[in-house]
Amino acid sequence: MKIGFIGLGNMGAPMARNLAAAGHEVRGFDIAAPVPGGVVPAPSAAGAAEDAEVVITMLPNGDILRAVAGEVIPAMKKGAVFLDCSTVDVESARAVAGQAAEAGLLAMDAPVSGGVGGAQAGTLTFMAGGPAEAFEIVKPLFDVMGQKAVHCGAAGAGQAAKICNNMILGATMIATCEAFALADRLGLDRQKMYDVVSTSSGQSWSMNVYCPAPGVGPQSPADNDYRPGFAAELMLKDLRLARQAAETSGARTPMGAEAARVYEEFVERAGGRGRDFSAILPWLAGEFGNEG
Amino acid sequence: MKIGFIGLGNMGAPMARNLAAAGHEVRGFDIAAPVPGGVVPAPSAAGAAEDAEVVITMLPNGDILRAVAGEVIPAMKKGAVFLDCSTVDVESARAVAGQAAEAGLLAMDAPVSGGVGGAQAGTLTFMAGGPAEAFEIVKPLFDVMGQKAVHCGAAGAGQAAKICNNMILGATMIATCEAFALADRLGLDRQKMYDVVSTSSGQSWSMNVYCPAPGVGPQSPADNDYRPGFAAELMLKDLRLARQAAETSGARTPMGAEAARVYEEFVERAGGRGRDFSAILPWLAGEFGNEG
Repeated sequence: MKIGFIGLGNMGAPMARNLAAAGHEVRGFDIAAPVPGGVVPAPSAAGAAEDAEVVITMLPNGDILRAVAGEVIPAMKKGAVFLDCSTVDVESARAVAGQAAEAGLLAMDAPVSGGVGGAQAGTLTFMAGGPAEAFEIVKPLFDVMGQKAVHCGAAGAGQAAKICNNMILGATMIATCEAFALADRLGLDRQKMYDVVSTSSGQSWSMNVYCPAPGVGPQSPADNDYRPGFAAELMLKDLRLARQAAETSGARTPMGAEAARVYEEFVERAGGRGRDFSAILPWLAGEFGNEG
Repeated sequence: MKIGFIGLGNMGAPMARNLAAAGHEVRGFDIAAPVPGGVVPAPSAAGAAEDAEVVITMLPNGDILRAVAGEVIPAMKKGAVFLDCSTVDVESARAVAGQAAEAGLLAMDAPVSGGVGGAQAGTLTFMAGGPAEAFEIVKPLFDVMGQKAVHCGAAGAGQAAKICNNMILGATMIATCEAFALADRLGLDRQKMYDVVSTSSGQSWSMNVYCPAPGVGPQSPADNDYRPGFAAELMLKDLRLARQAAETSGARTPMGAEAARVYEEFVERAGGRGRDFSAILPWLAGEFGNEG
């Protein structure tokens, strides 16, 4: 398949490389990052998009997505798919999808989970929104770049699913870390707490799969000095998108808002930037960041 | 075994009945509730405790536990086990355990999860704190009243494990309900959200086992008009115990505190009393309680 790939950062570069390695003809563009091996450099975003059957964007936020879409959509041939894999606000996703549809393109938003490790290993999960026809066309590309793709509904549904999932994840991770820190204070052994909670109604992915306590549960970033993994500032980005979506749509999300507040403090004032999002535990336990 | 059972309410009565049905000699007392079939009525709490090898208490709060313990402990024979299955604050649990130990008794705190249904069916989970010797003695009773018992550590460790678990549970349930309510507003189908989140990093017992959305996921109180199950006011009680433990011990629990605030509003001002704790979802979705 002829693919244009715009945005070759930590996520985009390995995704583009995997597509090229699978035999697709990939033309790539980034304003700063180098083009990875196997990908043909394009002179501009529009240059990467011309003649492509699918254009994939992997960009940092909704404003940049809107700007790139404004340049790329007019350059694409009718019937091609505009596939945005960025994590952005639902409104930007829908605006760009509308613009693409007006230009005679098929549009799909498909943010990912799995992080840089998942992008490199080709094990990402895609949450996709847009017409079924577009999903069928890009499904083989999802299969190369990831191991799971869920078609969540119409335009914007992929972004909605991702922020709903990550809002739950952020709140649950903080609550799990709080419980470990409280257990410490109450003289309850962390391993014992894990044994109880991981087999009871407090169980979750945060506890059972990604346990924030070093030496407890399966291997996780906590066992690697809290190197990400999933960086705290990316969780903060997602929680801000959730808060924005709640405000715009009139939904009440008190725990989501509190989780955003906690990650804001952690990232911006307590030294959490660059650490895994589970490092809330050593912070709450007083191991760093309490000087301020 | 000769057992004294004090506190024969919604939980205590079926627990005592199950012990009697298993062939134990159970003498029961309650200031108000009737003594269930198979249990011999005692004239007082002290009367139920005399000659017993194990005295079990199932009481509504720490103040009542302290009062009952003051009457019962002096009446017990040395070497007997004082087994408190109430959910109370960690400080009361430790104070009573200390008093029992001074009187030559073995003391164990063992709050339960599983609710009235679990008490009736004999499928409770016990989280136990106290000496290993006491745990060995009462283990056969746990096996009658429940299906799982974890020895969590010294006195108070059972209460600590329960409030840590339920603090995570309360916060996670609210976050899960918020995500469904947000999905509604964003036009994301609830079943699609369940399909994504229950297999991704937002998964939890609240989502995967006890899904708060009717018709989605396995059968839960949501499919029975939110009849408990686990009543919202009992979750509020546990969240207040967690907050009290955090304040007393100097732990930081921002999500736990926010969860307590949300359940306070839900139970005390929004009509949530008597509903299952997962009824946060219809409340956030605007289906009731927003008149105030």
